[in-house]
Amino acid sequence: MSDNSYGKLFRVTTWGESHGPCIGCVVDGVPPRLELSEADLQVYLDQRKPGQNRFTTQRKEPDEVKIMSGVFEGLTTGTPISLIIENKDQRSKDYGDIKDKFRPGHADFTYMEKYGIRDYRGGGRSSARETAMRVAAGGVARKVLGDSIKITGALVQIGNKKINPDNWDDGEISNNPFWCPDAIMAAQWETYLVEVRKSGSSIGAVIEIRASGVPAGLGAPIYGKLDADLASAMMSINAVKGVEIGAGFGSAMLRGEENADQIRIKDGKPHFKSNHAGGILGGISSGQDVVVRFAVKPTSSILTPRDTIDAQGNETEISTKGRHDPCVGIRAVPIGEAMMACVLADHIMRHKAQCE
Amino acid sequence: MSDNSYGKLFRVTTWGESHGPCIGCVVDGVPPRLELSEADLQVYLDQRKPGQNRFTTQRKEPDEVKIMSGVFEGLTTGTPISLIIENKDQRSKDYGDIKDKFRPGHADFTYMEKYGIRDYRGGGRSSARETAMRVAAGGVARKVLGDSIKITGALVQIGNKKINPDNWDDGEISNNPFWCPDAIMAAQWETYLVEVRKSGSSIGAVIEIRASGVPAGLGAPIYGKLDADLASAMMSINAVKGVEIGAGFGSAMLRGEENADQIRIKDGKPHFKSNHAGGILGGISSGQDVVVRFAVKPTSSILTPRDTIDAQGNETEISTKGRHDPCVGIRAVPIGEAMMACVLADHIMRHKAQCE
Amino acid sequence: MSDNSYGKLFRVTTWGESHGPCIGCVVDGVPPRLELSEADLQVYLDQRKPGQNRFTTQRKEPDEVKIMSGVFEGLTTGTPISLIIENKDQRSKDYGDIKDKFRPGHADFTYMEKYGIRDYRGGGRSSARETAMRVAAGGVARKVLGDSIKITGALVQIGNKKINPDNWDDGEISNNPFWCPDAIMAAQWETYLVEVRKSGSSIGAVIEIRASGVPAGLGAPIYGKLDADLASAMMSINAVKGVEIGAGFGSAMLRGEENADQIRIKDGKPHFKSNHAGGILGGISSGQDVVVRFAVKPTSSILTPRDTIDAQGNETEISTKGRHDPCVGIRAVPIGEAMMACVLADHIMRHKAQCE
Amino acid sequence: MSDNSYGKLFRVTTWGESHGPCIGCVVDGVPPRLELSEADLQVYLDQRKPGQNRFTTQRKEPDEVKIMSGVFEGLTTGTPISLIIENKDQRSKDYGDIKDKFRPGHADFTYMEKYGIRDYRGGGRSSARETAMRVAAGGVARKVLGDSIKITGALVQIGNKKINPDNWDDGEISNNPFWCPDAIMAAQWETYLVEVRKSGSSIGAVIEIRASGVPAGLGAPIYGKLDADLASAMMSINAVKGVEIGAGFGSAMLRGEENADQIRIKDGKPHFKSNHAGGILGGISSGQDVVVRFAVKPTSSILTPRDTIDAQGNETEISTKGRHDPCVGIRAVPIGEAMMACVLADHIMRHKAQCE
Repeated sequence: MSDNSYGKLFRVTTWGESHGPCIGCVVDGVPPRLELSEADLQVYLDQRKPGQNRFTTQRKEPDEVKIMSGVFEGLTTGTPISLIIENKDQRSKDYGDIKDKFRPGHADFTYMEKYGIRDYRGGGRSSARETAMRVAAGGVARKVLGDSIKITGALVQIGNKKINPDNWDDGEISNNPFWCPDAIMAAQWETYLVEVRKSGSSIGAVIEIRASGVPAGLGAPIYGKLDADLASAMMSINAVKGVEIGAGFGSAMLRGEENADQIRIKDGKPHFKSNHAGGILGGISSGQDVVVRFAVKPTSSILTPRDTIDAQGNETEISTKGRHDPCVGIRAVPIGEAMMACVLADHIMRHKAQCE
Repeated sequence: MSDNSYGKLFRVTTWGESHGPCIGCVVDGVPPRLELSEADLQVYLDQRKPGQNRFTTQRKEPDEVKIMSGVFEGLTTGTPISLIIENKDQRSKDYGDIKDKFRPGHADFTYMEKYGIRDYRGGGRSSARETAMRVAAGGVARKVLGDSIKITGALVQIGNKKINPDNWDDGEISNNPFWCPDAIMAAQWETYLVEVRKSGSSIGAVIEIRASGVPAGLGAPIYGKLDADLASAMMSINAVKGVEIGAGFGSAMLRGEENADQIRIKDGKPHFKSNHAGGILGGISSGQDVVVRFAVKPTSSILTPRDTIDAQGNETEISTKGRHDPCVGIRAVPIGEAMMACVLADHIMRHKAQCE
Repeated sequence: MSDNSYGKLFRVTTWGESHGPCIGCVVDGVPPRLELSEADLQVYLDQRKPGQNRFTTQRKEPDEVKIMSGVFEGLTTGTPISLIIENKDQRSKDYGDIKDKFRPGHADFTYMEKYGIRDYRGGGRSSARETAMRVAAGGVARKVLGDSIKITGALVQIGNKKINPDNWDDGEISNNPFWCPDAIMAAQWETYLVEVRKSGSSIGAVIEIRASGVPAGLGAPIYGKLDADLASAMMSINAVKGVEIGAGFGSAMLRGEENADQIRIKDGKPHFKSNHAGGILGGISSGQDVVVRFAVKPTSSILTPRDTIDAQGNETEISTKGRHDPCVGIRAVPIGEAMMACVLADHIMRHKAQCE
Repeated sequence: MSDNSYGKLFRVTTWGESHGPCIGCVVDGVPPRLELSEADLQVYLDQRKPGQNRFTTQRKEPDEVKIMSGVFEGLTTGTPISLIIENKDQRSKDYGDIKDKFRPGHADFTYMEKYGIRDYRGGGRSSARETAMRVAAGGVARKVLGDSIKITGALVQIGNKKINPDNWDDGEISNNPFWCPDAIMAAQWETYLVEVRKSGSSIGAVIEIRASGVPAGLGAPIYGKLDADLASAMMSINAVKGVEIGAGFGSAMLRGEENADQIRIKDGKPHFKSNHAGGILGGISSGQDVVVRFAVKPTSSILTPRDTIDAQGNETEISTKGRHDPCVGIRAVPIGEAMMACVLADHIMRHKAQCE
């Protein structure tokens, strides 16, 4: 019942703090005889790593992952896979100011309330640095998924600026620093984020993760529903405040005739005329694309001074001068993809155990 | 790893189908020596039970819960509490039509894809009838919470008609058949839902569940976060398509200065100037109200014929003449409250184990 | 993390007390489309039920099991299977004497220490009555195992009277009231147990459970080892004080040359020349018979007065006049078989999930 | 549901192979603000480490443990504690001979059957090297137990040479290389083991682990019983073939009057006149010493050639020339102590969550 683990059969346990010597994870339950190398994982870590452009934190971390166990002569052995990344650019000096003050919007206050102690350096365990291990684990999960399942993440909203779904182009996503599938909106976001960054502020965002090629039958009612597990997985990412599947909150405004996806036969197979369900009915995948969106709040660390208190209970204020992302949602895209991969890998194994 | 269980220490396992002889649950891990009677649970079941007004299904179920174990001379003994409710009004004849057809928006298709068999009577296991046991379990959970934690659920949106937060009045919630905290909106919804029902249609809704008196410190990072567990709990309710905490999806449109809740000292204690966080920071409760909202899609069973296929792969159409709710979201209010109670009870015990 | 559940994928949760209205269990994770009827389970319950001969308790319980969910038109549906047995012959009056006294060798004292409350009627939750549900669940497990795996339980020792392994005859086991595979020893036990019963005493026993046809590869190192799970399963049975695999405690007296089972090829397949390992190496089944033995202590409820204390802390003595078994180990045979079946069913599913 | 994890609230996940770069574990759920240093753990690792005398393997491993996370300024923070030990003396060359042959009594054959691949170097994951991490985790567990619980392990039998319980002297245990509490037997074992070692053979053993100061109330019926969890924990140790509690298998030979521990009042508190129960009744600790014994088979790696097959299915033979222990049971003593510590720490937290 480790609180630092997720997944039931494809099981990931992460550990480590922002400013400790390293961070790591253990991926257990991986099927044997899958080809796996550090390079296979590095490609995803490189997508997430900080300091790649002016819109993400300038912390310099090569984020080189090392496989410490569970792989022999290039193949998984079925035993736990231990992955480790060294922390290189820790700059503890940046964080001296927050040793005694609780940063609004951060977990400083609640960690202290819960544990009566906190590693204040860079947020310690509550730092988004932990998400590097999710991305690494997601790389292992993709090996379980194989080539027939494709996961695509994109940023679909920054502030009140939403992409135009009609402009969606998968090929565009890697053409801009925002994972934006809409070239027109990408240009607008650039201008907008430069302004946000220069003003020392930050802004929220919405990410969409889409998995195609997911077979029907994944997800286990009533409390292992695929959508419930995705909701938990995405909500567990730092700064996420909402998760929706398919039509999501929009479904509250639909009539029954509009919402329920009608079914036809096409090429001899069941074919849905729409996908308001986001590929999940009764908690089980339908064979349609699985579609999840989640909202990320604006970075809480900003230049503008904010009211807070210190550990001694005195009123004070704080502003953050360290390295931070104007829109932390941008870096959440590869993390959301990784969580999708891990949840699907887990459910593929769970389905196989009971139903195949 | 039962897929029909939730909670880690306060652990609920539900069983039963819509048209079986009965439904039930086992609540394990309950602290000993709590006063518990069937009447304590019945009060919540009565709130959820169908057939109470013209806006909910006309199935007649007294939903009388029986305690079969775990209570001795009026007190819990620490052993598993088995709860059972008989199914009285099963009317299997109503469902003959759906034996071979997959109802759009329902789990008929996916259950068949997953299991290769399905109990088609009333949706079998996928029926919302299962939620009666969540409500019963929630009654047990409230005993664990005690009197200092208060849970209030309300319907805050039907279709595009949202309540005015300024009109919120807790006392109003039980004055109308919609759990609406806004008397003015309640009147509008009445007119609107009569129209929806008469047209044989249905409409979605949004529910808000608020827990006050929750102590700071509940929730266990990184994968036992309070918000992630709430997301999973709410998403697992039938027809739910989205979950948000505090400002939720709205936080995507906020700037850092607007979003992060500033802290002052008031009456000698930490006091937040706002609650965009919904009472949860870094996955741990802050002592503020815990605020969750979830979106419920419109009832998929409607009078209007919809395109579908049958089990043999033929195209056909279906319309539902059975007893159904025009807005299934209404009955989700006590269910959402129950899930909140169960999640909080679980986390109180988890926190006690590690940190007290 | 229900403490009243066992198994990971084939997951059984039991509930109920000796003198409540009924006892029951929920079996979750069962593969769909298996034929299952109440009669399939009743055959095993009839083997365990009390009052069948003068060597087991005279409590009269028909132990008729009812399937309340999870089976539709004679087939499992993949949803949780709820099983219930009514308690018919509760005779609470027999137990008035033990309301305030702690019976030596029973759990009366420790339940009170743990929970501060106990259902004293017949031992409440700690009664061996609970094992009826294990036997029922074992019947479901055997459906998962199929016909190729055969489980055989036998009593191999009562007091210091051990069977002669050379006399072992599977066919003899059901020919005597002791599940004894050695006809000669069965006759001796009869005389012996009559004496034990007449003297108001009781005696311990050793049971052996053997599973043949178990495929190689079951069990998941390091903490899901097949032997570790069997040890836990058997030790959880009432009155069990020891568990061993293969040569067991005898292996402490062996030299390396004697103990390690040498391997040859026979009929084109690996063939072990002995089975000191009890069919398990490194926690994984080898394809040989899986062999487990467990020791059952003598019934603690005896006629002879014993020193004890009461709930108020006064010294007193107690003797038991109720219905009890002179050798509780006899009835443990079908229970041990059931636990073996459940553990194997669970591991078959776990192995399939990861390795097939 | 990681198969490489144990414990429910005090949760340990181990990883690593005999000849990988390092081995490690993650200890999750540890209460915050406990003092913890590497030296606190090293003392236990030093007890287990190989090469300390002529009766244990000559592999040279300093076994220096490093704390990578979860401790800040000398105190636990409540976040996962990652522990790592480098493998220094791997000598892969020693094991070239076993690349293709299955060593009788080892897990070579079953790992290959299960996974279709195996890291043959030193046994890979199945090596007893993994137990170093149990010992490290046990050191953390002892911090949870505090000073009032004392755990004492001892070797009580080698081959058919059993200690005389009347000679038991705790102070003697660290005076000889066998953890023998009986000075007279220690001398005999020395002579005996020299003979065993010189003949290239090996011999089994029995270990006893005793915990005193354990409060009454630990253990959670029915499937989280303290004895069942201890049975699983001890059986999971490499080479263990049997586990017993208190009188154990001896209880099969006892009469009811002999076995059940009578209770008196002494110094105002309940006092048992004997401890056949091994401190556990109904799966719950009684306040008496918790007493567990387990049998360890003889080292399977011996000089004498043994019949076996190779990976290609050919009959062949094998003898082991590498570094091995004549009695692997000796080094199991600190491992058994560690498992006892971990199980107790887990149950203390579980009990607190539900019952305090």
